[in-house]
Amino acid sequence: MEGIDKAAARTVLEKVRAEGRDSLTAPEGKSVADAYGIPSPQEGLATSAEEAASLAEVIGKPVACKIVSPDILHKTDSGGVIVGVEGGAAAREAYETIVSNARKYDSSAEISGVQVQEMLGGGQEVIIGATTDPTFGKVVAFGLGGVLVEVVNDATFRLAPIDEPEARSMIDSLQASEVLHGARGSDPVDVDGLVDTILRVSRLVTDFPEIREFDLNPVFATKDAVSAADIRIVVDPNEVAEPERRSREEISRVMDRLMNPRSVAVIGATEQEGKIGNSVMQNLINGGYAGEIYPVHPKAGEVLGRTAYSSVSEVPGEVDVAVFAIPANLVPGALTECGEKGVPAAVLIPSGFAETGNTELQDEIVSIGKRYGIRMLGPNIYGYYYTPQNLCATFCTPYDVKGGVALTSQSGGIGMAILGYSRTTKMGVSAIVGLGNKSDVDEDDLLTFFEDDPNTECVAMHLEDLKDGRAFVDAARSITKKKPVVVLKAGRTDMGARAASSHTGALGGDDKVYDDILRQSGVVRAPGLNEMLDYARGLPKLPTPKGENVVIITGAGGSGVLLSDACVENGLSLMEIPQDLDEAFRQYIPPFGAAGNPVDITGGEPPSTYEKTIRLALEDDRIHSVILGYWHTIVTPPMVFAELTARVVEEARAKGIDKPVVASLAGDTEVEKASEYLFEHGVVAYPYTTERPVAVLGAKYRWARAAGALRG
Amino acid sequence: MEGIDKAAARTVLEKVRAEGRDSLTAPEGKSVADAYGIPSPQEGLATSAEEAASLAEVIGKPVACKIVSPDILHKTDSGGVIVGVEGGAAAREAYETIVSNARKYDSSAEISGVQVQEMLGGGQEVIIGATTDPTFGKVVAFGLGGVLVEVVNDATFRLAPIDEPEARSMIDSLQASEVLHGARGSDPVDVDGLVDTILRVSRLVTDFPEIREFDLNPVFATKDAVSAADIRIVVDPNEVAEPERRSREEISRVMDRLMNPRSVAVIGATEQEGKIGNSVMQNLINGGYAGEIYPVHPKAGEVLGRTAYSSVSEVPGEVDVAVFAIPANLVPGALTECGEKGVPAAVLIPSGFAETGNTELQDEIVSIGKRYGIRMLGPNIYGYYYTPQNLCATFCTPYDVKGGVALTSQSGGIGMAILGYSRTTKMGVSAIVGLGNKSDVDEDDLLTFFEDDPNTECVAMHLEDLKDGRAFVDAARSITKKKPVVVLKAGRTDMGARAASSHTGALGGDDKVYDDILRQSGVVRAPGLNEMLDYARGLPKLPTPKGENVVIITGAGGSGVLLSDACVENGLSLMEIPQDLDEAFRQYIPPFGAAGNPVDITGGEPPSTYEKTIRLALEDDRIHSVILGYWHTIVTPPMVFAELTARVVEEARAKGIDKPVVASLAGDTEVEKASEYLFEHGVVAYPYTTERPVAVLGAKYRWARAAGALRG
Repeated sequence: MEGIDKAAARTVLEKVRAEGRDSLTAPEGKSVADAYGIPSPQEGLATSAEEAASLAEVIGKPVACKIVSPDILHKTDSGGVIVGVEGGAAAREAYETIVSNARKYDSSAEISGVQVQEMLGGGQEVIIGATTDPTFGKVVAFGLGGVLVEVVNDATFRLAPIDEPEARSMIDSLQASEVLHGARGSDPVDVDGLVDTILRVSRLVTDFPEIREFDLNPVFATKDAVSAADIRIVVDPNEVAEPERRSREEISRVMDRLMNPRSVAVIGATEQEGKIGNSVMQNLINGGYAGEIYPVHPKAGEVLGRTAYSSVSEVPGEVDVAVFAIPANLVPGALTECGEKGVPAAVLIPSGFAETGNTELQDEIVSIGKRYGIRMLGPNIYGYYYTPQNLCATFCTPYDVKGGVALTSQSGGIGMAILGYSRTTKMGVSAIVGLGNKSDVDEDDLLTFFEDDPNTECVAMHLEDLKDGRAFVDAARSITKKKPVVVLKAGRTDMGARAASSHTGALGGDDKVYDDILRQSGVVRAPGLNEMLDYARGLPKLPTPKGENVVIITGAGGSGVLLSDACVENGLSLMEIPQDLDEAFRQYIPPFGAAGNPVDITGGEPPSTYEKTIRLALEDDRIHSVILGYWHTIVTPPMVFAELTARVVEEARAKGIDKPVVASLAGDTEVEKASEYLFEHGVVAYPYTTERPVAVLGAKYRWARAAGALRG
Repeated sequence: MEGIDKAAARTVLEKVRAEGRDSLTAPEGKSVADAYGIPSPQEGLATSAEEAASLAEVIGKPVACKIVSPDILHKTDSGGVIVGVEGGAAAREAYETIVSNARKYDSSAEISGVQVQEMLGGGQEVIIGATTDPTFGKVVAFGLGGVLVEVVNDATFRLAPIDEPEARSMIDSLQASEVLHGARGSDPVDVDGLVDTILRVSRLVTDFPEIREFDLNPVFATKDAVSAADIRIVVDPNEVAEPERRSREEISRVMDRLMNPRSVAVIGATEQEGKIGNSVMQNLINGGYAGEIYPVHPKAGEVLGRTAYSSVSEVPGEVDVAVFAIPANLVPGALTECGEKGVPAAVLIPSGFAETGNTELQDEIVSIGKRYGIRMLGPNIYGYYYTPQNLCATFCTPYDVKGGVALTSQSGGIGMAILGYSRTTKMGVSAIVGLGNKSDVDEDDLLTFFEDDPNTECVAMHLEDLKDGRAFVDAARSITKKKPVVVLKAGRTDMGARAASSHTGALGGDDKVYDDILRQSGVVRAPGLNEMLDYARGLPKLPTPKGENVVIITGAGGSGVLLSDACVENGLSLMEIPQDLDEAFRQYIPPFGAAGNPVDITGGEPPSTYEKTIRLALEDDRIHSVILGYWHTIVTPPMVFAELTARVVEEARAKGIDKPVVASLAGDTEVEKASEYLFEHGVVAYPYTTERPVAVLGAKYRWARAAGALRG
């Protein structure tokens, strides 16, 4: 980026800091903007009529002349403002008039001179700025300006620093971006100029973290130019400490011991049924965990047939993971013992920490964890599952359907819903992890592990806040290039955010910031719990699409209409069917079947019609994804449809044709079994809904686009 | 409404018609607007400089002066426009300049004079208009003006004529209505003036149906005034025929015979399994229909043990309903026989009519129906169910769970999904009706029947188009005062609408018009098929709320946050809990439980905590609806929660406390059974989702607000 004078900006900011101020004056703001090539109106201070004239001539456009005096606060009242001044002669006259008015107004006023400033206006008003988000740190903002758009609130945010394509995406992601590109015959504004200004703002706040807030409002964007009429800079005189971050290697090393432990100690293991320490022991054993299990209990003896130890220090071998099932107040002591023993990971099930207001106790365990380098999951969690190790270190029931989905939740209740949904839908799971109070291990640690975990194909996370938004984004950007990550961000709305903060004491960020930055990091956001679970279950079933052309094949015209609605809702593109392909479909469907897309094969058709049209859609290279609308009839019963579809899809996959196929089944209750069968055979299918299968396909596309998988 | 001169408007419109034109000139438009008291800028034609001066003085505001000449098309090029003219002297001068410029520009031009027009500007630009919608007829439109808002497309529509509260609701339903009410310190515009103008437009297009389009664009609305800068009127010289409509009594009489027939003839009845004529016979008999069943088949004999007749004319007794199960080409003949016999209602299952392009055949049966006064359901349908009569006149399987929900669908596939969903959820149903091509009976006939039907409490309709939007609105407005009506309008989106029109040949209306007018008619619109079914199943379970205060009681803080999100999403108001109530809740929950709303009783609480807090919420008059978030624990297992909740709710209902209660159950698979149990006991409950129970409650509120049930 050219024309950046970092030293000049530093000089101004250091002066402000030296003077103990937290905001910049207008001229200081302009100096900083100038130093970073951020365009603002040309201006200068004239101390004589001649200077005013020459300034006006240099500017070469209509100017506004304003009195500059520390003693005159109400410039307009004093007759100290003249606008629309054109040319040197007029500026000279304006200078004289203003100074004379000022003398009349207050004869004792000290007059510094007259500010001569290029007049702005016309074009489109926008806002460019940057703020320091409590979750994400420096965030660049771009929005439309003016009273109307403040009401409709059309703005977008990105984590700083951003690159050129990201800056451009900000302009295009405004609801009213058309206005900037020249809507309805009006001139487009200088979009390149806007992009450049946004990039310069991003660079500035990155170079100077002490800039807490930076506002260019309004910025006038015309056909030829961009200019910030007002510049406001607020600084934070205190050094902003970056959160402590571990290296990727360090994270991976301990996370691997947490997820693939050779041995697990259960602190608080007991024979007593109904106790957490008993449930955890049972689940570890019944779940089939093959590593060492060491029960730890002050009374020692045996627990479920295994030798118990009075403390973790007594355990003879190495302990990779200590699962805590003891009351909160006993945790610090036992954790210290783990530290002394060199246990790398602790799973803190107990509640009674920050979530109940007992932040001191939580601070205490955090400091013990730091002292000994123990990574801690929780506290206030149900525990965790990692199925490749048959590891059920929880007080819930074991889960044994292995598969590629890793799920995490901040809340225990949501974790239980994850478990129930997974079991009832037979979802193949690699991990279910409770994060609770996130005293230490959080989402970015897990993403780092799941990225390299060969057993995980897709990650779904419920979260209410992020401890370190920037670390999350880094981890998410990395993994989402390979695997989809679905996020359910609770506390989306103002009301919800309020409940979140009474729940965890977490500061709920502005949802629009979350939304934009999650998208920027490649994450697929789910609107609700049900969708998160549907996406988690469905995404690994679908191959990555190779392009945007979606075709609907339906036996029920009515489903075709609703499926089309759902495509639009989910940002999918119904392919414009080329004539030869249309003719190819037509040879299989009745003459009154509807042409185009949806391909309406009409009700009452035999299995062969479904089969031929589905095969055609799979084998034609121009089609990238297929949505099926099945209508239950006597001629083609549900299981017949399910089996033929699974077979045709499998045949195609055997030939290397790997396209996402989803299906909506309309019919009597037999369609439930047919949908399950299809799901098991790699087709995302649902009964009684046209929305859910298309929403899952839409989520796959959102991920694929963000991961750049569609571009090739 | 004062100041309306209908005769003056008629004179102008008759002149236009007499001259065979379809649009009005600007002065004609102004005359019509003036006649209806629609404010527009003051103006006049000056034929001398003196007249220009006196016009400018009468107007008393800055004016624009423009040449009026049939020979000068480019007024500005000719120097024929001067704006910002203030006072008589300036106007005199402007007149002279304009006429002299015009003479210079074209010495032979005929000069009619100079138009002197009040200048508008400032304030907020809006659009007020009316259009003739193919579905709904005269529709009044209101929207924000200006280039930006054209892009964000902030407009709203109402069926004309409207009343004052409806006109006011248009202003408030704009996305940017705050701008009109004075956003961020700016002046509010003259909202009363806008309301008055909208009402006058509504009145005008109602008085003169030949006005096809009426546009005031832009209208400038300032603090003190409203004025339409441009008036455009397009007329349709042809009389617009109102669709034929039957009286309510006429509709009710035949619909009652259709739904409560004493006898049913099956045209095409057969012993042959797999044939529609066989399925219908079997379903009538096995379904338990107690009236007479007359099989009709050319070969006569017996069908399923009942005497068959060679034609309907041969049937000895009266026939209320004739169900057709014969090929399309045989329908006209058999229908004529039904006409001769005096059968009042025909159910036309066969396809092969308009949906396959055979509009002639459909026209033929329509004309036979009219000739004999037979009301016809279909063609191209699965038939219909009416459970109070154990009537299954369909080729699907019988349905026997009786209850208060009536469901209808335009598409057969969607009808099958309705059947499957109903059966799997054990939804209590009064009717399931296929409407298919809607050659005759349509949604408004059914709404009229269901309104008076004591067996129906709630109606859910899938539709792709409306034959007569106005009749639908009339019927919907009437029934929705008593019972909720849920509508799934397919073809919501552009893409969807395209598929709809290839499916039924129906013209898809603009969805925004549909959306606004459905809301205006009191209908609850469902965003998708799944939601329509969920609302249908849930709404009759919930009593009508008496106010807006919603309280969430949750065992899982995480569910509380998501439930709060869902409340905002669904337009529900989380009650601000008064201090005494807060204290009352606090005595039942642990000290670290969260105060306020959600009431977070925290995990691990025994059944008594749920019980006491739920009872408190039911018994406190200030709370109007309750949302429960259950978390599966060993202490309070799912069925224990379900049973205690059902009991507490039943106890309250026994005391006359009737509040809607919905529940979200997070837990292992046992929560599925618990949810079903709760549903059966009047609590709308779902497992693994925080969104669906709240969406159903939201739908109940949408209906209750529209029905005026919350006002009392």
